[in-house]
This record gives sequence, structure tokens and C-alpha cells, in this order.
Amino acid sequence: MISGFSGAGKGTLVKRLLSSYDSYALSVSMTTRSPREGERDGVEYFFADREQFEKKIREDGFIEYACYCDNYYGTPKDYVEEQLNAGKDVILEIEIQGALKVKQQFPESLLLFVTPPSAVELKRRLLGRGTESQEVIAKRLARAVVESNGIEAYDYVVVNDDLDACVAEIHQLVNAARRAPVRSGAFIRRIREELKELGNEGN
Amino acid sequence: MISGFSGAGKGTLVKRLLSSYDSYALSVSMTTRSPREGERDGVEYFFADREQFEKKIREDGFIEYACYCDNYYGTPKDYVEEQLNAGKDVILEIEIQGALKVKQQFPESLLLFVTPPSAVELKRRLLGRGTESQEVIAKRLARAVVESNGIEAYDYVVVNDDLDACVAEIHQLVNAARRAPVRSGAFIRRIREELKELGNEGN
Repeated sequence: MISGFSGAGKGTLVKRLLSSYDSYALSVSMTTRSPREGERDGVEYFFADREQFEKKIREDGFIEYACYCDNYYGTPKDYVEEQLNAGKDVILEIEIQGALKVKQQFPESLLLFVTPPSAVELKRRLLGRGTESQEVIAKRLARAVVESNGIEAYDYVVVNDDLDACVAEIHQLVNAARRAPVRSGAFIRRIREELKELGNEGN
Repeated sequence: MISGFSGAGKGTLVKRLLSSYDSYALSVSMTTRSPREGERDGVEYFFADREQFEKKIREDGFIEYACYCDNYYGTPKDYVEEQLNAGKDVILEIEIQGALKVKQQFPESLLLFVTPPSAVELKRRLLGRGTESQEVIAKRLARAVVESNGIEAYDYVVVNDDLDACVAEIHQLVNAARRAPVRSGAFIRRIREELKELGNEGN
């Protein structure tokens, strides 16, 4: 899961991860927010109205969903399960509330928090995007203050300064994380069993 | 901190880490156990008798110490602090009890657990060492069963199959671990403060 301040460059990072390595699959979220310029239904998001979204909630069709800036965002269940079964690392670009809900259900999932090198740089990127009103930018900065209080819940904090370096680093972190005990359960169980058997032979 | 089953190859890995990268310094432990063939005082260990060791305990001269297989093992404080202040990553080759004690005092420290690819391979290596009696080997295998129950407390489990690959992987894990929030405290505090300041400017 990739979270981070709005304007940290998560979207670009995710696109580059997908094009650079074939081990990833992208979970496309569903949202009730309006499409931004150039966003296509089923690519950046599945766009839905509140009624459609709430129907899918009732059908238990989301791994998680949350309301953020007055819009619903959710992760449809079926595609994620399909890709995990195919051995892919599924990327969720997800805000912090959702990330923590998924982590509860899937303790082996990895939480990455992406941040620009400074708050000034964050504001510069939000302004540079040119698609958001001043009011929305102020709202996003205020939200960033709140989100920054959740950073400690993440596995890794990644500074997105140089894009290429950041993509490579995220891939390294994903691989490093495989060595954490929570993701090495099968190996740990096997060697424990083997050790017990060897110990019994010695008696 | 590098822990792992006796016979996992920790000593060789540590030597290779020190010779391959200049960012590491090795903490030399003090022990009351007898030197093995070829071990030199102040290099593999500081060798001491029980009386000397217990005097140093009373003087609060250890970060941690523990009793293992009827011998004391401890980490003298002064050298570690000196090397940390010089910006080095200090390696402690340390058994599991000691590792957990150090982690309590230094939450930013990293716990690596080294294991051979299988229990059979572990026994093969212990036999191949040729310096241990059958009784000691049986004791170490029994100990490994107990130690395997502590693996979940470690940050990473590293399989030492190919030595070169394992050394490179450990170095990558050390660098990955710097991105964990517990080791990125200064950055997190700074960006939080900056965000608050920017938010206040907006009001």
C-alpha cells in the first residue's frame, strides 16, 4: 500500500513501478469524486455515484472503503484476490484510514508512506498541478498535518525527491520487507518443525 | 544486531560485512567461555574470568550481558558509544536474550536473525566445524529449537545459503531499515513542524 500526502507524487511513482517491474499489479480504486482532467474510468479510478458505491458496500464488495474530503474511496475485493493468487504484488494507492484497515485484515501487507523532501516542496507541487482551487489546496495541507501524525504506523517512509531513485528504492523496500518474520511465516514454520524432528532423533 | 542459530555462519558473515563496506564497526563481546582454536583476545572476544566479568557488571560497563551455556557473554558499553558517535553502524553478534535487551534500550537498533536454509544443513555445518563434541552439538540443536521461538521478535530473517548473496542482502536490509519510522524520527519531526507552520500561514 502506498499512502502519502496529496501532492507527494504517489500516482507517478505507481505508474513507474508498474512499467519498470512486472511483479506488480495495480488495484484500481472506486471513488465518488469527479474525474480530473485526463482521468479515465477503470484506469485511474472506477468512477461511481454515491448510490452505486453504497450498493457495493452493502454487497461486501470492498476490502476497505472510507470517506475523505466528502467523497467515498474504496478497494474492490475481487481484482486484488485474483492478482494475489497469480503471485503478483498488488499495489493499493490508498489513504491512511484505508491502509490501516487493510493492514488489520492482511498483516503481511506493506505500508509505504511517500513524502516530498519538505512541506514547502509539497505546497509547490500542489500549486504546480494547477487543477485544484486554493480552497482545496488549503484543505489538503491541513489534511497533511493530520496524516503526518499517522506516519509511525507505516513500515517505511520514502522521500520522493528524485523520481528514478525513489522508484528503485520502493522496489528494494518491497523486497527487503519479504524478510520480515510476518512475511516469512512458511519458512519459519518449516525450520521449526525440522529442528524439532532433528532434536527428537538425537534422544 | 546479528543473531541466529549456532552454526548459521554469523561469524563469517560479519567478517565479510566489515571487509566489504566501510560503514560498519564491530562490537567485540566479552565472554568467560574458553577460546576456540585460533581465537584471539580482543579480536573474536575479550576473554575474561568470572571474577573480572562480574566486576564489570557491577561497574555498569555492559549494554547487556547474559549467561548462555554456563558462560557469561556481554557487550562492553564504551566502544559501541564511541563508534555510534563516529557515525558507524555498529554490529553486535549477540544471542537472542541480549538482542532483546539492547532493542529495549535502543529501539532504533536492527535485529537480524541468520539461519541456514534448513535444519539438516545446520547440523551438517555444526559437524563440519569439527571443534565441538557430540554433546555440545546436541545442546546447540536443542537450543536452536528454543531460539526458533524467538524469531518473530526480529526485524528480518536472513537465509545464509550463498555467502556473497547473503552479505549483499544484509547490507540492503540495513539500508532499507533506515526508512522505518523508528529510524526516521528527525525527518518526520521536521516535516510535521513545517506542515504546521505552512498551515498557520494559510489562516
